[in-house]
Order: sequence, then C-alpha cells, then structure tokens
Amino acid sequence: MIGVFDSGVGGLTVLEALAAELPCEHFVYLGDTARLPYGTKSAETVVRYALQATGALMQYPLKCLVIACNTASAVSLPAIRERMANVPVIGVIEPGAEAACAASRSGRIAVIATEGTVRGAAYEEAIRRRRADVRLTALPAPLFVALAEEGVCEGPIAEAVAHHYLDPLFAAPRRPDTLVLGCTHFPMLIQAIRAAVGAQVTIVDSAQTTARHVRRTLREAGLAAAGGQGSLRLLATDAPQRFARIGSRFLERPIEAHEVELVDL
Amino acid sequence: MIGVFDSGVGGLTVLEALAAELPCEHFVYLGDTARLPYGTKSAETVVRYALQATGALMQYPLKCLVIACNTASAVSLPAIRERMANVPVIGVIEPGAEAACAASRSGRIAVIATEGTVRGAAYEEAIRRRRADVRLTALPAPLFVALAEEGVCEGPIAEAVAHHYLDPLFAAPRRPDTLVLGCTHFPMLIQAIRAAVGAQVTIVDSAQTTARHVRRTLREAGLAAAGGQGSLRLLATDAPQRFARIGSRFLERPIEAHEVELVDL
Repeated sequence: MIGVFDSGVGGLTVLEALAAELPCEHFVYLGDTARLPYGTKSAETVVRYALQATGALMQYPLKCLVIACNTASAVSLPAIRERMANVPVIGVIEPGAEAACAASRSGRIAVIATEGTVRGAAYEEAIRRRRADVRLTALPAPLFVALAEEGVCEGPIAEAVAHHYLDPLFAAPRRPDTLVLGCTHFPMLIQAIRAAVGAQVTIVDSAQTTARHVRRTLREAGLAAAGGQGSLRLLATDAPQRFARIGSRFLERPIEAHEVELVDL
Repeated sequence: MIGVFDSGVGGLTVLEALAAELPCEHFVYLGDTARLPYGTKSAETVVRYALQATGALMQYPLKCLVIACNTASAVSLPAIRERMANVPVIGVIEPGAEAACAASRSGRIAVIATEGTVRGAAYEEAIRRRRADVRLTALPAPLFVALAEEGVCEGPIAEAVAHHYLDPLFAAPRRPDTLVLGCTHFPMLIQAIRAAVGAQVTIVDSAQTTARHVRRTLREAGLAAAGGQGSLRLLATDAPQRFARIGSRFLERPIEAHEVELVDL
C-alpha cells in the first residue's frame, strides 16, 4: 500500500497524479482536515502534526509514504524518515526542485507557496544543491489556497489574485523563465496563473513530478505492483462531508461522504 | 480580568471594541492560532478546542469570558457555560442578532459568516427567537477571511470578492435592509462590503454590539472596574510572530512578537 499524507484536500492533486502513473497500486490517503492549514503554522507544530499522521498511516502495510503537503515536506521529512526507517518517504519539494532546475535556461526561477514553505526555504536549498547559478525568488501566495478551496479557480477574482501576486515578479525586465507551483492547491488555478505569467514561462506542477519520482523509486526498489486493479482508501481527521465536497474538485471525480473515514489523531 | 477567546487574530476586532468601551479593564486574549480556522471544522471539533482554550483561560482570575469567535459562539456556548458556571460567558451571536432585529424595518436580514457558523444556524435561531417575521438569508463567505488575514482589504480583489458574494443577495428586488457581519474578520473589509451593498443597508458589526453587551452585563452585575488603567495580555497557541504581524492590523496598533505569549493546549 502507498500512504499519501496531506494537511487537507490539496494533496488529492498529488494522489490523482499518482493513481494515473501507478494504476495498479493501493493507496491510503490521510488529510489532516481538523488542523489545516499547515502553511501558516510554525515548523514545530507542523512536525508534531505530521508525526501523528504518520503514526496513523503506519497502521497500514505501507511500502512507500508520500508527503503530498509542501509545508510538511519542507519541515518534517527528516523526522518522518527517522520514524519510518524501513519505508521510502518521498516529499514534493525535491521532485519539484529537480524539474525546475532541468527546465530553467536562464537560471531565474520563481516559487509560489504557502508562508510556511517559503519561510522554511526548502525549495531554495533543494534548488541550490542542484544548480548554484540559480536566482530564486520565493513568494507566499496564501490567497490561492482559499480560492482553490472555495472553487473560485477561474474568472475575474482568480485572475485578479494571480496578477496581484505574479505581476511584481513577471513584469520585471529579467523575469523568471520557470515557475514552481509549490503548494498542492495551486494546480487548480493553473489557467489564471498561466494567463498572468504568459505562454513563455515553464510551470512546474509538483504533483506530476512527484508521481513520476514515486514510480521510479518503486521500480528501482522492485516494489511496484505487477498488475491488478488499484484501490483507494480516504481518511480525514475532521468533517468528511466537506472533504468529499471539496475533494471531488481536486481529485476530479465525485467522492461520497461515506467513502471518507474519520480518524482521530 | 476579562477573558477573550478567538480561533486566531480575528477576535482582536472584538477586543479593540471592548477596550474602547471598557478602558479600565484588564484583558487576557487567547488566539488558538495552532488550530485555526474553526469556520471549516465540525461542531464536535470546535467544542473540544473551545473547551481546551477555556481551560487555559481559567488559569486567570476571570470575571467574564467573551467568545469572540462566531463559529465557537455558534456551537460551543452551552458547553463553555457549563464549564464556567460562576462567570458570565458572552458570545458574539446574540448581541449581533439583537442589533439586527432592532435595525431591520423590512424584516429581510442577511448574515455573512464562515461555513461552520452558517451550518450551525445559530444566527437564524437567535434572530427568530426575537422576531418571527424575519426572512433571513445566511451565506458563507470564507474568502473574506483569507483576504482579511492577507491584508487585502480594499482595492479590486476585495471589491470583486464582495460583489461575488453579495450581488446575488443584494441585486434581488426584495433585497435585505440589514447585513450582519457574522465573522470577526469581516469588519476589516467594511469598505468593500459597503461599496457592494450600497449606502441604504444597515451593516451590523458584532464587535461593537458585543462590546456594548459586555459593558451592560458587567455594570448590571456590579463587576465593572471603577477606574485605573486597563491592561492587555496576549496569548497564542502558535506562531507569535505571525500573530503580532497580522494582529497589528486587526487591533489597529502595533503588536511586538515578544508581547505574545505562547501557550500549549
């Protein structure tokens, strides 16, 4: 089984990409909806919550754990890896950083993320480790999270917010050529973001890059499912109905409230 | 001492109104920033969190407890009152409902609030108890919370969001004549909201009405401070720096991070 952990429903964009790359696998997804958002919380608190969630997922026979939340990936990977010594633990930051470094020609890369991810500077570190020449700009864009959760993903509000955050970066003469969507909510707003940055900028969606990274890791370790029909189990720490309603948009298929199991952390 | 409890910084609008009405009182404010927002969480979870916060505030010699959070007021007042049997516990819903019923001529009242407050139907119940003739429309407006926290309180985005929520209500022929701001964040957006609804609508800000209600309660009970200089103690369950930065806007005076004491619930 592959565990996928997120602070809420945003990680369903990662789950969707994983299920597309690995259709024969069994997934268990835990959204910590009782305590979201992680993006505005301190590193210590996020680490504590992430370890509790990891503990809940360890009830399942995991062969791999994906930390689909950028904020949790940014601050809690070492602690989670220590806890799950025998299972590969994959975050979304490293695959995103790798894809951005491969895509950028000019070395000017921008990352939009939550406050917590930006403050933790995890993308910065992961990108600099790969390419010392990169000039990185990391920008918190929390309104995108609220818009995605509200389903206001296109139209004048989404476009105005995209311009609000991105114009100062992309209207500059030496503008970035690559933009990393450093939050699992942001792929929902891809059209408004694309309209604001223009067609020339490469947009790196860490859901896609992480899914490919997980597939490669499982294959290299000889852990990939050989065939059969995959499955999905959904867990949430609060409000299964809201999870189902908003999650349906993120997963791009209907979720019924009774499919979502309530767990107490 | 007067305890003021909120899920985060939004309740500082209530605290500011309280300090203006009652300048000689000593206040202790607790923002549960580790677990905000409450507005999207289930009633059970909000009650549990509110009781933990109440426990922390009971360390102080309280003569009154104000539940500044609409969502917590909507679902957890009975549980908190049971816990604090000897101290008056005042929420923001009843004073807001009272003011709205007094203000409305046509009996058509609208409430904008968080999802949790709308789902709990507490305004509906409190208003109908006072005026059976009222036709109430309650609408969740969660993007306003995100905008207020981000400090995007005026300009094209705030106006577009105000129109997004309010036009369907106020463009109708039999439009409400009274609008209740049923979330402590919303007074921050008063200009954009006013622009969307027009000058004829009475806007009820529950911070003001609650502060007056608290003053009346203390006077009637003979508990009001007779004189002297008031004081303020700020507690948060996470991220004091963020509390200080964003809270400064809500309290309309600078807050230094070292003024905010971290408490663990």
